[in-house]
Amino acid sequence: MSHSKRELHLNLFVSPMGHHEAAWRHPDADVDQLLDFSFYKRLAAKAEAAKLDSLFFADRVSTSPGAVKYGAVGGYEPLTLLAALAVMTRRIGLIATVSTSFNEPFNLARRFASLDHLSGGRAGWNMITSGTDSEANNFNLERIPEHAERYERAREFVDVAVQLWDSWEDDALIRDKTSGIYADSRKVHELNHKGKYFSVKGPLNISRSPQGRPVLVQAGSSEDGRQFAAEYAEAIFTAQQTFEEARSFYRDIKARAERFGRDPQHVVVLPGICPIIGRTEEEAQEKEAQLAELINPEYSLIMLSNRVGVDLTGYPLDGPLPHIPLAEVRGHKSRTHLIAELAQRENLTLRELLRRLAGGRGHRTVAGTPRQIADMLEQWHAEGAADGFNIMPQLMAGGLEDFLDLVVPELQRRGLFRTEYSGVTLRDHYGLPYPESRFRQELSFGQK
Amino acid sequence: MSHSKRELHLNLFVSPMGHHEAAWRHPDADVDQLLDFSFYKRLAAKAEAAKLDSLFFADRVSTSPGAVKYGAVGGYEPLTLLAALAVMTRRIGLIATVSTSFNEPFNLARRFASLDHLSGGRAGWNMITSGTDSEANNFNLERIPEHAERYERAREFVDVAVQLWDSWEDDALIRDKTSGIYADSRKVHELNHKGKYFSVKGPLNISRSPQGRPVLVQAGSSEDGRQFAAEYAEAIFTAQQTFEEARSFYRDIKARAERFGRDPQHVVVLPGICPIIGRTEEEAQEKEAQLAELINPEYSLIMLSNRVGVDLTGYPLDGPLPHIPLAEVRGHKSRTHLIAELAQRENLTLRELLRRLAGGRGHRTVAGTPRQIADMLEQWHAEGAADGFNIMPQLMAGGLEDFLDLVVPELQRRGLFRTEYSGVTLRDHYGLPYPESRFRQELSFGQK
Repeated sequence: MSHSKRELHLNLFVSPMGHHEAAWRHPDADVDQLLDFSFYKRLAAKAEAAKLDSLFFADRVSTSPGAVKYGAVGGYEPLTLLAALAVMTRRIGLIATVSTSFNEPFNLARRFASLDHLSGGRAGWNMITSGTDSEANNFNLERIPEHAERYERAREFVDVAVQLWDSWEDDALIRDKTSGIYADSRKVHELNHKGKYFSVKGPLNISRSPQGRPVLVQAGSSEDGRQFAAEYAEAIFTAQQTFEEARSFYRDIKARAERFGRDPQHVVVLPGICPIIGRTEEEAQEKEAQLAELINPEYSLIMLSNRVGVDLTGYPLDGPLPHIPLAEVRGHKSRTHLIAELAQRENLTLRELLRRLAGGRGHRTVAGTPRQIADMLEQWHAEGAADGFNIMPQLMAGGLEDFLDLVVPELQRRGLFRTEYSGVTLRDHYGLPYPESRFRQELSFGQK
Repeated sequence: MSHSKRELHLNLFVSPMGHHEAAWRHPDADVDQLLDFSFYKRLAAKAEAAKLDSLFFADRVSTSPGAVKYGAVGGYEPLTLLAALAVMTRRIGLIATVSTSFNEPFNLARRFASLDHLSGGRAGWNMITSGTDSEANNFNLERIPEHAERYERAREFVDVAVQLWDSWEDDALIRDKTSGIYADSRKVHELNHKGKYFSVKGPLNISRSPQGRPVLVQAGSSEDGRQFAAEYAEAIFTAQQTFEEARSFYRDIKARAERFGRDPQHVVVLPGICPIIGRTEEEAQEKEAQLAELINPEYSLIMLSNRVGVDLTGYPLDGPLPHIPLAEVRGHKSRTHLIAELAQRENLTLRELLRRLAGGRGHRTVAGTPRQIADMLEQWHAEGAADGFNIMPQLMAGGLEDFLDLVVPELQRRGLFRTEYSGVTLRDHYGLPYPESRFRQELSFGQK
């Protein structure tokens, strides 16, 4: 490394129109691009030219006639889109959310191994637990399981997936035409896993992928979520409203990871940032206000109700956020907590709260000049609140270019961001180690 | 159409090394290409240049240390690979096998809708039921469910998937920035399906795809399989050893489809053919013999045991195929029946049977000159045994080129195969209608 400073990491969180709820209504937004692959291809090429670490797609497995009335929903299933982007890019990491709640470890492990092979080692998996009844209703359930139960399933799910990725050792392939031996069967392992949620024999039916395993990403900040992240995650997306909260979260996660015997540097913490960039601060604020004008409170209330798992559609917009009994929340606990706290701290009416959440759903929004944005990122990074950032443009059209063309070069000038990729895989970009197969040791003890 | 003759359809069944069990051991085979995307990209470009209807990938969700010892296993998950190929091709259809046994309809419907959007309407789904315990063991089950139960689940699975694909009507999208109305919520439907195997609320979270639904393909020829195919399938892959059997199957399927009130032309029957092509018949037979020399009977017995669901590994190779109680077969019934009949009809030893199956696993193998192969295809097509063929080169290296460069032009000269694509979607290529949404009628009756 030629830089003396520790570099930060940048992940682009892709929302096709932008992260603002009303982005599709903006005059600059192109509503056709939701399913237009050439748009995603250009976007990925741009992000790769700017040397970003990775692209990321969130996911949710339900919608409703009420939501599609107002929201630009109905895009690609993330892994399908990333498979196509994998062969159109060369260096940028490709991270997809797939729920542990409604999938089978064998199918998921195989798909991520396939993406990792296809991309030459650039796959990442955001391991979520789904948190809403409307998703559960698409998968044979009346209600979403309790929070703790979801995480219990997630832990077993990840454990099985890791065993599947490890089931072919690195040097299992022999492929000797003369003898007819294709692989060393002693280096291809059955797991014979029998647990509470899953029984999986293995081995996986695809050989070990370039990264060994995809980079494991996590995005929940509840107590259960933090423990899960500290044990398994190699990168963490998190919503933090203030520097103090972000630093406290950062310290907590690193300490927890150490208690699991892990190197805290191998858990990359990436708070979400919604940048709104102007040539002047005023211009940025005008951009923010312009998007806010397009908000439909009826839609925003549906979205917020989905997020917190409580039906808020009857409440007066100019009154306060009603009390949400946090202990009873089945859905996304940490985000619900953040939202309730934000409303109370700033004494917001429901209407004001909806406006605050419309841009980034609880992620930190920052409007300013490229230098001001870079200052904020530098401070959070330098003062122990972040290893990098999850960048969430409110409006993709223009907003992404502004960030890549104006903020990234500013970070590069400050020596805070790479000007060339130094590695090939997503693990290289994030500074993460190659994981050895869990099954490897067996052999070194001379076992079959 | 400028041709007076009815044209036939050609699907390329891709097996990366070739369909012969020992193909990877052939001197011309490139064992690196199993996971080399550039190989698949070249192959797809070649097949598209020859104007083939479609590419097809089979699937199986297990392997074992014993199988990987001898077999070239461990390739891509089919939908991942097809997503990448979708953006590298423009016209050729893209068909993937995905099992109804170990997936959820919501996830599957969404992935195929994504592939159909990504490819501009070229997706096809081969709807299988998985038939082996070794696959069940990767999905929480000790044993594979009974044959009839698997088909019962498959029928409900397909019914739900179709409803999900239909849940957004063609003209549901409005996307009016001024009013903020994104979609007509009356044209996006909940299914509220509650059945024996699945409860799925819907709607799907991706809008209706170019083909409305992917082309539905089926590949089992048992009684249950035929009924399922006649009711749902738009294209059928089938293994038929003789012209008489193929014609009888063809007539049976078309008659069954008619009994379901369907147009028999909308069920395209495609028997599998393993062509081995030489400049002379002798050269073709030499090629066949050369591959047969590379067979490892130990591996072939594992494969056959998997296929019929009976452990045959103890039996003497120079004795007959032991009696298989067909009524009790839980696995792939029709193929097991075909194999037992083949062994009996030709009075084969186990070793001879393995040799016969190594090339195409029970599909019709034909060695000859390009003209001889074309004659056979023309006869089956003209005399009511096939609407086209599922082409399965025993050795991809050379074998695919021989078929595309020598047999396809011969068929074109005879007016039996297109020289240009006349349509854009896979439905266009196969002459299949665009399916109207099942939910559409509701509205025309003025309902909400």
